[in-house]
Amino acid sequence: MKGFEELSKEFMERFNNNHFPDHPSSLYEPASYFLGMGGKRIRPVMCLMGNELFDQITPDAWQVSMAIELFHNFSLIHDDIMDHAPLRRGMPTVHEKYGESTALLSGDVMLVVAYDYINKIGSSYLHKIIHIFNRMAMKVCEGQQMDMNFEKSEEVSLADYLEMIELKTSVLMASSLQMGAILGGTGERNSQLIYEFGKNLGLAFQVQDDYLDAFGDPLKFGKQLGGDIVANKKTFLFIKTLEFANPGQLRELKELINSNPPDKVQRVLKIFSACGVDGWAKDLKEEYFFKAMKHFEDIAVLSSRKEPLLQLARFLLQRDF
Amino acid sequence: MKGFEELSKEFMERFNNNHFPDHPSSLYEPASYFLGMGGKRIRPVMCLMGNELFDQITPDAWQVSMAIELFHNFSLIHDDIMDHAPLRRGMPTVHEKYGESTALLSGDVMLVVAYDYINKIGSSYLHKIIHIFNRMAMKVCEGQQMDMNFEKSEEVSLADYLEMIELKTSVLMASSLQMGAILGGTGERNSQLIYEFGKNLGLAFQVQDDYLDAFGDPLKFGKQLGGDIVANKKTFLFIKTLEFANPGQLRELKELINSNPPDKVQRVLKIFSACGVDGWAKDLKEEYFFKAMKHFEDIAVLSSRKEPLLQLARFLLQRDF
Repeated sequence: MKGFEELSKEFMERFNNNHFPDHPSSLYEPASYFLGMGGKRIRPVMCLMGNELFDQITPDAWQVSMAIELFHNFSLIHDDIMDHAPLRRGMPTVHEKYGESTALLSGDVMLVVAYDYINKIGSSYLHKIIHIFNRMAMKVCEGQQMDMNFEKSEEVSLADYLEMIELKTSVLMASSLQMGAILGGTGERNSQLIYEFGKNLGLAFQVQDDYLDAFGDPLKFGKQLGGDIVANKKTFLFIKTLEFANPGQLRELKELINSNPPDKVQRVLKIFSACGVDGWAKDLKEEYFFKAMKHFEDIAVLSSRKEPLLQLARFLLQRDF
Repeated sequence: MKGFEELSKEFMERFNNNHFPDHPSSLYEPASYFLGMGGKRIRPVMCLMGNELFDQITPDAWQVSMAIELFHNFSLIHDDIMDHAPLRRGMPTVHEKYGESTALLSGDVMLVVAYDYINKIGSSYLHKIIHIFNRMAMKVCEGQQMDMNFEKSEEVSLADYLEMIELKTSVLMASSLQMGAILGGTGERNSQLIYEFGKNLGLAFQVQDDYLDAFGDPLKFGKQLGGDIVANKKTFLFIKTLEFANPGQLRELKELINSNPPDKVQRVLKIFSACGVDGWAKDLKEEYFFKAMKHFEDIAVLSSRKEPLLQLARFLLQRDF
């Protein structure tokens, strides 16, 4: 078995080719530019690992992994437009560099090319893979819409928030693993189990990401600390704090949101900590991680084949035990 | 055989159902709103007629016709964003009513649902139909990108313009007919011929549309006369005028574009006429129409089955002979 690192390397070699026609370059050059920014390519490799869990990697899994990464990048290009984000990975976003209309169209055409890769797989799995891919694509759009709704909404419940991150983040990981597993020839039960594994892993990962945005080590995390706080994002830390805070803390929190003082991040973090949401977040991440592991253990395959995916799960959640 | 009117009626009955999940309504309600604006549904009915040309309409043709209409509406929602169009068919566009981000996402999800309809057809044609659908979708994006490029470009050649309208308009008509024909069980040669028929018909139709925008009867045409002239669009009338005009006419044309006087449309039309581009446009439309007919005649099928498509072609090009 190859495992995450070797598969990442192989995937990047195959992916770093031209996916688009030459003409008109005003449409396709921006699409290639965005792909050239790089990325960890975790999702397509999850598809390959879901495939390798059951046997040697099949040619169809390579095609679907390409489609997954193109889909992911399509969604990022469009998300960047919606978020008015000027930079991604330190480089100008597509709409920033080429204008919004071109970014919109480059994203559209990238989604079509993703379907083109799917169309390269054999007949026996084509209907099923398109079905899963479409459900996944719809849910990612739904998650992005919910995320936008939250920006304008005064009251976001924890249940709403968890549904949003499930749709926006976890479903793509879950579906990537599941499509790989199905192409590896596994049956319905294993395919459901690996989906649930991926879904809960994705939830734990997103909870961790939100936690690290507030409490992480900026050097290790690689992002500006408290970005979500600055943007008044209704992460679960914020939602839970509203629930736990006493009237004085609530008043201070609302004042900080409205006045945006220079020490806002520091003071909000202090309220978060005083309300105990950091510990609560760690518990929630653990909860999802253990749910993920429970489903993973139940997958009926030789346990030695599970080793690479287990390592990936630990790596994603920065756990060593 | 049912023919255009009966098939239109049947298509609209089937299409006027809900295509989307209920939740989140903030994503799917805007998509349904746009579909509810109506439209002539010419393209999906062309798919059905391409299918009926060879036999009774198959269930697969109905599915693909749904996908075609959803694709067409996806492209309109995104085009409206790019064109900053406030109205379509007299109603607020999606981005105008719900905001740009929601319009972008509603379009995205509509494209995914289009693929969902395609995924309902049988295995034997699935690869082939997706292949044609994807080529078509890419070309429509390419055409829209070229159209946007022209807005900023000083020099647009007639060849560029004709390529753009082929991509933006004709390919969808051509592919709709072709997919229907393939699902009707016809062979490679007929499938190529019907594509060429549709492509040339679409080109004739677009040339007519540009002509009518300038010289049509406003009551019959249903649009504001000279809209393209007001917007300084580089239609073939404009491109050809630049070629035929004498230095005095050229000077006046450039002055009119820069100064936008109240009598601009009237005066530009006068130059168009003086340069003879109205006659030239009629000839070009005829040329494409006869090319379309030549390919249509060559399709190897009983000539009585061709009658409905022939009527449609005449109707689209407002010709009675």
